[in-house]
This record gives sequence, structure tokens and C-alpha cells, in this order.
Amino acid sequence: MPRLTERTRDARRRQILDAARRRFARNGFHATSMHDIFTEAGLSAGAVYSHFSGKDEIVAAIADEVIDAVTEALAPATAGDPPSLDDLFEHLFTTLQRANVATIAITVWAEAVRDPALGRRLSTRYRRMRHQLTELVAAHQRRGTIDSQTSASAVAEVLTALGPAFLHLRAFDSAVSATTFTRGLQALLRLPHA
Amino acid sequence: MPRLTERTRDARRRQILDAARRRFARNGFHATSMHDIFTEAGLSAGAVYSHFSGKDEIVAAIADEVIDAVTEALAPATAGDPPSLDDLFEHLFTTLQRANVATIAITVWAEAVRDPALGRRLSTRYRRMRHQLTELVAAHQRRGTIDSQTSASAVAEVLTALGPAFLHLRAFDSAVSATTFTRGLQALLRLPHA
Repeated sequence: MPRLTERTRDARRRQILDAARRRFARNGFHATSMHDIFTEAGLSAGAVYSHFSGKDEIVAAIADEVIDAVTEALAPATAGDPPSLDDLFEHLFTTLQRANVATIAITVWAEAVRDPALGRRLSTRYRRMRHQLTELVAAHQRRGTIDSQTSASAVAEVLTALGPAFLHLRAFDSAVSATTFTRGLQALLRLPHA
Repeated sequence: MPRLTERTRDARRRQILDAARRRFARNGFHATSMHDIFTEAGLSAGAVYSHFSGKDEIVAAIADEVIDAVTEALAPATAGDPPSLDDLFEHLFTTLQRANVATIAITVWAEAVRDPALGRRLSTRYRRMRHQLTELVAAHQRRGTIDSQTSASAVAEVLTALGPAFLHLRAFDSAVSATTFTRGLQALLRLPHA
């Protein structure tokens, strides 16, 4: 077999992950076999195994994609000049909606509470995300745009949970959109008094 | 076999559901068989089947318990005098933490994106919850304690997602607590400007 170019390899990898996402979403992680994934992808066993050693590696790669989508959505938070929370939320929910990861995210989370290795992978990424958001909150506190009596890390904890919160609700109600969710959150941030 | 009293029946049912929760949390929903549940509960097949026709009925009962925990946690929202959001959040997160449902909730959600009947059950309950919260938000808007330029239902959407958001984060980080989460959220509600 001729050596695949890097571009072809990437396309194959994408094809396998997309096939696995469709199957996991339809039948769940455990009821999906490697054979189901070959069939869904229209590839031979050898072609799939040259990319992934098995289902665990596939679900870990999908988990990374979900977390990358959230990390990318939070990227402005780590840029030089900290964005307003309004702008950050709008970007976060719009990016997550475009990434279309609500259903697969929920499947990955369930596997992560069961599989310790995947669980650690997710916990590590959440900690890193919260650390970045803590710096953002601290910058806002120095500016006086977030109350500085509460610890920056407690505020960052809530911010970290908002991405998953949006994905969760959207998975069960397709009427939930980045637009309404951003507006609802912005209204809460402008409470005359709580 | 003598007829079981109602109290004994309730205790048995509890015993089965607790056993199933432990097994689902450890091995996931699909890798758990009815036989695993008999063994974990220390009951005969007949004793378990006299309560539940199968795994689908068991997971539906557990889903109801998770949603009941959230509904109970939101109960003050539907009481005569609408509580402040500060009070509501404190009650919500404290109740959810005490109910200890973070891990099992994530397992139930994953099953609900896969199983249409369970998915509809969850969607219906979320819609009902959001409807109640919309009335709470509308009451706050009439009082002037929530900005009335945003639709009450958009704000209620965000409130609905906060319970799942807390459970999600707590499942992956045991350091997340009702206390820090409530404080973080309260600080966000008091933004000098967003």
C-alpha cells in the first residue's frame, strides 16, 4: 500500500472520528463496537487501527475535540486585553453552537465518570481552563468590573461551568440557542440588586 | 410468599435503585446487566422483577429521582412570595450537593440523548421547570429586580441550566462545593457593569 500523505491521513482520521461520533450518539459508547465504526466509516479494520488502537483512544480523541472546542471558545479570555464578560459569553456560546458538540459532549462526560483515565484527562483540562479564567476574573477585579470581595477562583468556577451548562440544555432542547442563552445571562449580570 | 407491606416494598425498591446507581456509576449503563443489579442488591431476580420490568424502567426511575432532586431544590421558586435569586441559588446548590447525584446524573443524561423515550421524559421535565422559572423571573421583573428588557423565558433558560452546570463540574472536581459555587454566582450577579 502506498504511504498516505499527511493530508490524506488527517482526512481519514476525521472520517473515523465523525463515524464514531455518529455511532456513539445513536447507540451510546458501550453498545458501539470497533466493527460498527469500520462499517459506519466505510473503511477497513486495518485503516482504522492504523489511526487508533481501540475505542478508548477514539473516545479520548473525541473528548479532546470537545474540550478544544470549549478552550477555543474561551480563547479571547486569555488574549492580552481581557474582554468584557458580555463579549466573552457571546463568543463562547456562538462557538459552541457552531461546533455542534452538545450530544457527543454528554456521551463523553458519561464515559469520563466511569473511565478513570478519561476522567483525569477531563479534570486536568477543566483545572487549566479554570486557572486561565481565574486570571481573567482577577484582571476584572483590578479594573473594578467584578466585585473583588469574592475569590477570583470561585467566580472562575462558575464561568467554567457555563460552557457545559449551555451544551447540556441544548442537547435536550434544540430551541435553546446561543442568542437566547447569551441574552439571558447578560440580563442576570445586570441585576439591579440580587 | 407473604404479601409485603408497603413499607417493605418501598425499602426494596430503594435497595434496587441504590444498587443500580452504584453499578451504573462504576460500569456505565450499558455494561451493567440485570444480573449485576440482582447481585449488587443481594436480591433474587424475582424480587427485582416484581418492582421493575427491566433496565429501562430502572434508569427512568433514577432519572425521575435526579430531576425530583432538582425540582425540590427549586421549590422555593414556586412558593407564594418569590425568593431573591441569592437565596434561590444557595438553596439549589446546597440541596443538590446533599442529594449526591452528580455522577449518576451524568450517566442518566448520556442515556437520555440515546434513548428517545427517556430523552422526551427529561425534555418534558426541563420545559416544566423552565416554565416555573419564567414565572419567577417575570415576578422579579415586575418588582424591578431583574432587567425587564430581556424576555423572562431567556433568563429562565439560564437559570434552568445552573443546576446541571453545578452537578457537571462537581462530578469532575470534588473541590467544587455549593458554598464556593453560590458565592461565585452571587459575585457575578453583582457586576458593577458587565
